[in-house]
Amino acid sequence: MKLLEEKIRQDGKAVNEHILKVDSFINHQVDPALMQDMGREIADHFRSRGITKVATIESSGISPALMTAFALEVPMVILKKQPSKILNQDLYQTVVTSFTKETNYELTLSKKYITAEDHVLLVDDFLANGEAATAAIRLIRMSHATIAGLGVLIEKSFQPGREKLKSQGIEVYALARIGKMAENYIEFID
Amino acid sequence: MKLLEEKIRQDGKAVNEHILKVDSFINHQVDPALMQDMGREIADHFRSRGITKVATIESSGISPALMTAFALEVPMVILKKQPSKILNQDLYQTVVTSFTKETNYELTLSKKYITAEDHVLLVDDFLANGEAATAAIRLIRMSHATIAGLGVLIEKSFQPGREKLKSQGIEVYALARIGKMAENYIEFID
Repeated sequence: MKLLEEKIRQDGKAVNEHILKVDSFINHQVDPALMQDMGREIADHFRSRGITKVATIESSGISPALMTAFALEVPMVILKKQPSKILNQDLYQTVVTSFTKETNYELTLSKKYITAEDHVLLVDDFLANGEAATAAIRLIRMSHATIAGLGVLIEKSFQPGREKLKSQGIEVYALARIGKMAENYIEFID
Repeated sequence: MKLLEEKIRQDGKAVNEHILKVDSFINHQVDPALMQDMGREIADHFRSRGITKVATIESSGISPALMTAFALEVPMVILKKQPSKILNQDLYQTVVTSFTKETNYELTLSKKYITAEDHVLLVDDFLANGEAATAAIRLIRMSHATIAGLGVLIEKSFQPGREKLKSQGIEVYALARIGKMAENYIEFID
């Protein structure tokens, strides 16, 4: 998506070879019209797949997922982060180890909101290591739902997320793919 | 907003006199089309006020705030929750004590995204004790921005949130106002 690449070039900031700041339009301040355009583009890519739910991970995936779900006219389900294990028979639960934040958390999903009949599109803001997406997919599969794919705004293609998901049979669709970064330097993959 | 009252009657669940579950369309599973309608209604109420930013509190306020900001054609700013004090000169910070969850957290806002020139509408899903809203307003005022008001989806009018905000000069606009609850019983205020 050329629009997002241009926005990243203009308002994003490559801090070093790993850290991209997009705080001004995606993470902290959000551009709602751009978010709708991005959600619509992800929706268009997956439109013919019979998706019944859009799932996302709390909380930075909520904006793109809401706009994607709106465009597909299906509900959005937010996979919730819990700081510690809670005991609840009505929930699916899985532990996520975050390398970037060096913390563990519990990802949870109410059994009511994704079932074996669902075909789920996962949407998130970033794909890097694929650790959060892998946990989300593990959680969704506990319900025996099928997974249509993962749609993300920005993929750090120099990290192993896409390969990790591909090896699990998950299609990844990214609006902007970054091949290489350095301080104040960003190289996109077409 | 009669549509929301009907939805609460149909799909919400009053667990007891304090707890209302709206997990199936607001908190855990989200109905994007309803969320757009609700965001538009909040936007319409405040439309003539010269609002420059919509602010919300991570994470359950993001969906209604995004749709409100979209309708007002202004950016949304997410006030971020941090589990512990971080030292950063680029941030405004304030501590929030949550009575419902019995925890403390730090609410943070980058100095870049709300400034003295802004007129800010705060949007959240629920208003109950008003503790989160009060902290958000305290944080926004650190920037010397002015506050247009608070728009919420559901107000528990039997709790002191509205009075607390009114005493600070903040107008509250709620799409649905609950006057009284009991197990499987909900009374709305017109």
